[in-house]
Amino acid sequence: RNEVNATLEQVKLTTNGQHEIKHEIKHETNGKHEATRSATYPAIDMNALGKAAKVASRKLALLNTGQKNAALHAIADELERQSAYVIAQNELDVIDAKAKGVAEAFLARMILNPKAVKGMADDTRNVASLPDPIGSEIESRLLANGIRVSRRRMPLGVLGVIYESRPNVTIDIATLAIKTSNAVILRGGSETLRSNIALLNVIHAALDKVGVARQIVQLIDNPDRGLITELLRLDKYVDMIIPRGGDKLQKLCKEQATIPVITGGVGIVHLYVDASADLQRAVDIIENSKVQKPSACNAIDTLLVHESVADRLLPPLAARLAQSHVELRPSGRAIDILQSNSGGATITPAGEGDFDREWLDYILGIKLVSGVDEALDHILEHGSEHTEAILTNDWNNAQQFINALSAAAIFVNASTRFNDGAQFGLGAEVAISTQKLHARGPMGLEALTSYKWIALGDGQIRP
Amino acid sequence: RNEVNATLEQVKLTTNGQHEIKHEIKHETNGKHEATRSATYPAIDMNALGKAAKVASRKLALLNTGQKNAALHAIADELERQSAYVIAQNELDVIDAKAKGVAEAFLARMILNPKAVKGMADDTRNVASLPDPIGSEIESRLLANGIRVSRRRMPLGVLGVIYESRPNVTIDIATLAIKTSNAVILRGGSETLRSNIALLNVIHAALDKVGVARQIVQLIDNPDRGLITELLRLDKYVDMIIPRGGDKLQKLCKEQATIPVITGGVGIVHLYVDASADLQRAVDIIENSKVQKPSACNAIDTLLVHESVADRLLPPLAARLAQSHVELRPSGRAIDILQSNSGGATITPAGEGDFDREWLDYILGIKLVSGVDEALDHILEHGSEHTEAILTNDWNNAQQFINALSAAAIFVNASTRFNDGAQFGLGAEVAISTQKLHARGPMGLEALTSYKWIALGDGQIRP
Repeated sequence: RNEVNATLEQVKLTTNGQHEIKHEIKHETNGKHEATRSATYPAIDMNALGKAAKVASRKLALLNTGQKNAALHAIADELERQSAYVIAQNELDVIDAKAKGVAEAFLARMILNPKAVKGMADDTRNVASLPDPIGSEIESRLLANGIRVSRRRMPLGVLGVIYESRPNVTIDIATLAIKTSNAVILRGGSETLRSNIALLNVIHAALDKVGVARQIVQLIDNPDRGLITELLRLDKYVDMIIPRGGDKLQKLCKEQATIPVITGGVGIVHLYVDASADLQRAVDIIENSKVQKPSACNAIDTLLVHESVADRLLPPLAARLAQSHVELRPSGRAIDILQSNSGGATITPAGEGDFDREWLDYILGIKLVSGVDEALDHILEHGSEHTEAILTNDWNNAQQFINALSAAAIFVNASTRFNDGAQFGLGAEVAISTQKLHARGPMGLEALTSYKWIALGDGQIRP
Repeated sequence: RNEVNATLEQVKLTTNGQHEIKHEIKHETNGKHEATRSATYPAIDMNALGKAAKVASRKLALLNTGQKNAALHAIADELERQSAYVIAQNELDVIDAKAKGVAEAFLARMILNPKAVKGMADDTRNVASLPDPIGSEIESRLLANGIRVSRRRMPLGVLGVIYESRPNVTIDIATLAIKTSNAVILRGGSETLRSNIALLNVIHAALDKVGVARQIVQLIDNPDRGLITELLRLDKYVDMIIPRGGDKLQKLCKEQATIPVITGGVGIVHLYVDASADLQRAVDIIENSKVQKPSACNAIDTLLVHESVADRLLPPLAARLAQSHVELRPSGRAIDILQSNSGGATITPAGEGDFDREWLDYILGIKLVSGVDEALDHILEHGSEHTEAILTNDWNNAQQFINALSAAAIFVNASTRFNDGAQFGLGAEVAISTQKLHARGPMGLEALTSYKWIALGDGQIRP
């Protein structure tokens, strides 16, 4: 208890007395945590926050790559130095979350340990090592009249990022923003507010050391949801909104924002096994696409199987997926096949709306189709244009599948889990976009940039 | 009168009786036009319109470049064939507009004559001749694990374009949409509704001839402004909104749209004449930037002049601009210089807010500054990040000017009138964007495309 209180004092100090979070914990003897949280949050003037970000972004735009990388290395070092402090604050969040009875998977995502903090420091150094997109010229041409025209990459300005209770996103987004010379306003999940304040303090301490304005990274340290709506309408100062969260958040942003929004993240992902597919390889790819990380947006939700290979594919597949305790939700004839050959897997006939759900869990819908046409019909009706895959050895079917879909990423004979910025060689990933403007699919550093046209003449006038 | 009625009958026929526009014209003998317009507009089910566009866009996406170009040539041919019909309909719009007492400049923009219609046909053939961006692959790479990744350009889907009373925009946008395999929903200015219906009929007649679904180009043929708001919230079917209009329209779209909006068009444009500039050349460039087309968004609004060269620059400049009847609105010491050396130009001291206005007219604000720093301060405070220019022979000042600004286009020693898609070699121009996402500055065909990632493997799973 003493250690925890000491850490709380530290929060008070490093934020100049603006944060006043009182915290009482009752720990019952029966082993169940119960917390009474009594917190006072600072009032936030969102307009002032936005203006400060815009002002800071102008200064940030003048830093060269070396200065930005120095700031990133300072953050990495400070993270390692203040690891115990960050973890202690995170523990308080975890205690509260347990008391609130959040799901195990949720808890797993929010917990920080020394390895996780070290991972954040390593990721920060990785971002420092990436090429800086700012200042590069996309194309440079001499026009017939002698004017030289080029497009030079520049920062967007100020980003607004709204995310859930994964504190590592705080570091991810802050470092990607700094690398691309963008100021950022963060609004993380309320369950990890103390963790995020701690990480912000670490970032600010590092920025102080290298003489960069703290206001390039700001946090909405008040869980009032009305502040999100205010952020979405701050078009005077904020240039881009990235909502990293579920359907509801995406919808809120689309409805309310007066600022361009990058929507994405929600993926109802299909994998279609064609009649000509290599079925042994199919079992490996399906397993990987489902269980390598079921909580990811690029994990498959629905398996579509050509009816002619279902009898041979489904029994061994069920046995393989049973090893990872995947629940199968088949429809139609797939039910019969699987119920007589479950391989130890739990078989639940697909219910109403099951083919419209993003599971984010060890569950897989299964449907038989008569061929690539019916598979495409199903995907066009139920898909969310995030990630789609076909396993086939038929050239025409592969081409038809690729051409007919406009999903952000389309895979042939590979796991859907590769739909990822790092896997695609982008170095880092801001988010996976499913919108069509600006950026689609995995967004790397370039997605955080805009450009300006530069035209150099020697007296040209337009005829 | 007889001829006019016949033309109206034709409108009824070509739209299958759905349009019922009754028109009565009273022509007074004193030479002043006066019209009583009695019109019945069709009710529009925007949801059905959107759905039809989406369905049509899927078919359009399957057409190859040759088929799309054939449709464009058919439109060009049909425009020439039905020139008289289009002009007759336009005349009715013009009569009404005159009766309403619109400004001469407004009238000039809406009038179609045989030359203008021929110009639209020529522009359409030019669009057909441009390279087709759809289907091209932006980059293709082999990852270390053997997966081949590429990004393939694809259509956005359905565009919603809102514009003012220039009927040529109807053809411009429709043809650029077809070229990029996008369906489009048009909403032109109400003053040119008959002209736009006539042009739509021409487009549909041409599409019929080449067997392409009419629904790829649809028009909101009802001036009810509530339909614009409905269009802005049709995110289920529409992928991009392009408002081509003034401040109010841009604001309405930002506020109301649940669809990504490309804002732009409004430009408070500055030209700064540095101490080191070639003053003779400066007079030519300033004249061109102001009078070559004052109604354009890239025409200059405010001239910033280094105080050390004002005495030498302003008198000959005023004499030159007087030839085009440009009214000068100087402030501070520039007033004294110009009032004693007006060269025949009208000199009106700049009023409150004059430096925050986009003139779109033969008017030019003038202010003296102490150097590039003060020029930049003024631009950052009053600019709209559209087009900015510096005239200088000083390398450092040019660099500082380019680096400090994030306008869509920045010019050194050239007329601002070059900020244009065709001038920059893009072949065509959809709009000039001043937003930072997706497209900035002149938007060519590529700005009407998105992309999908395609990953081709041979069994890869993610470790």
